[in-house]
Amino acid sequence: MPRPTPSSRRAVVLLSGGLDSSTVLAWAKQAGWELVAVSFRYGQRHPREMEAAQHQAALWKVAEHIQAQVDLAPVGGSALLGTAEVPKGRAMEEMGSDIPVTYVPARNALFLTYGLAVAEARKISEIFIGANAVDYSGYPDCRPDFLDAFEKMAILATKMGREGTRIHVRAPLLFMSKAEIVRKARELGLDLGHTWTCYDPQPDGSPCGLCDACRLRAQGFAAAGIPDPLLERRGT
Amino acid sequence: MPRPTPSSRRAVVLLSGGLDSSTVLAWAKQAGWELVAVSFRYGQRHPREMEAAQHQAALWKVAEHIQAQVDLAPVGGSALLGTAEVPKGRAMEEMGSDIPVTYVPARNALFLTYGLAVAEARKISEIFIGANAVDYSGYPDCRPDFLDAFEKMAILATKMGREGTRIHVRAPLLFMSKAEIVRKARELGLDLGHTWTCYDPQPDGSPCGLCDACRLRAQGFAAAGIPDPLLERRGT
Repeated sequence: MPRPTPSSRRAVVLLSGGLDSSTVLAWAKQAGWELVAVSFRYGQRHPREMEAAQHQAALWKVAEHIQAQVDLAPVGGSALLGTAEVPKGRAMEEMGSDIPVTYVPARNALFLTYGLAVAEARKISEIFIGANAVDYSGYPDCRPDFLDAFEKMAILATKMGREGTRIHVRAPLLFMSKAEIVRKARELGLDLGHTWTCYDPQPDGSPCGLCDACRLRAQGFAAAGIPDPLLERRGT
Repeated sequence: MPRPTPSSRRAVVLLSGGLDSSTVLAWAKQAGWELVAVSFRYGQRHPREMEAAQHQAALWKVAEHIQAQVDLAPVGGSALLGTAEVPKGRAMEEMGSDIPVTYVPARNALFLTYGLAVAEARKISEIFIGANAVDYSGYPDCRPDFLDAFEKMAILATKMGREGTRIHVRAPLLFMSKAEIVRKARELGLDLGHTWTCYDPQPDGSPCGLCDACRLRAQGFAAAGIPDPLLERRGT
């Protein structure tokens, strides 16, 4: 985790309310960054994700929490936008082998660009994202070469970039396994029971336990040897 | 204007309803492209822009017209988003000298990325945009080096790009003057009276005539020796 310098004290952090972005939020905060969190209402099936983002943003005392309406429903082409069934009960090896139907086309690219607009308007040159190239190897816009290309584009897209400011996209979890992220989150004191991962929340507000995201999360907690407090809340 | 090939018959076109994007729409249509138009409700002060986009999309028979809610109000930092006064009565040389307060941070980058998501979901590799580097030289994300960097990012951000599809951002107006665009629009038979340019529409729905966009448009029509039909509608 990079520490802020006097010239870059502030950072934008993309915050979905999931385990990864919440970990990045807590980590950046503890490293000394003053944070502007940006969350998106993009047509998710359930408000649980945004509730988790609000909870984490308040807990970690962000300077500003932007909750932006960016409607991705017209984009289509993803189970997360309600145009196909969320697959359930897939094996780990199946998940890594191809881009899943839950892939939202260019979502990271779009959210990063929105984060860039927020950053540009506030003269902030650092953007944190919970992108991970290990567990989500199937997602093209989670990979390091994409993030490098995005930084180059960002410099040319902005006034600050044109004037010589180096813009950084920081993805501190990029090469960490889910188990390492769980351990890091616990070390940071993250309230893991209020992070949200599931692609298909149940009517009673609990995670389905069977979608790819739930299974990756469960596997990460198991490998880290830590019980998932979100599941312990389930019966309450 | 490039013509479609059998492998790239379809294109996404970003359509604001302004003179430039409407000209691109008409031009691409006449060159033989099948078009998916994408317009944005991003917190404009007035619905006139979207009405013009709807009118042009219907007139040029697009295959699909996506009208997406992408709320830029939380981004801030622009007179177009209501956070500052739209400047009036500026001289041409003033406009070119610096980035104006009407600049919406990274707006083209964001709209192009949304267009990329739409394209990816439909397996379309061509995106048309009315960007112009002549009259809007103050806008960083209207310049050719930005568009090149965006293409490189787009290839790495998408499944189709990763699989070898070359993604093109087409900006056929990039090096044209406003007068050339006006002449091209008339040659294409564009309904110029239903294009919208003004940053600050008046309560009666007419353009203000004094903002940078109105002045550039007026200067373009004057230099082309063509009366602006939008102004002739003004009294009706």
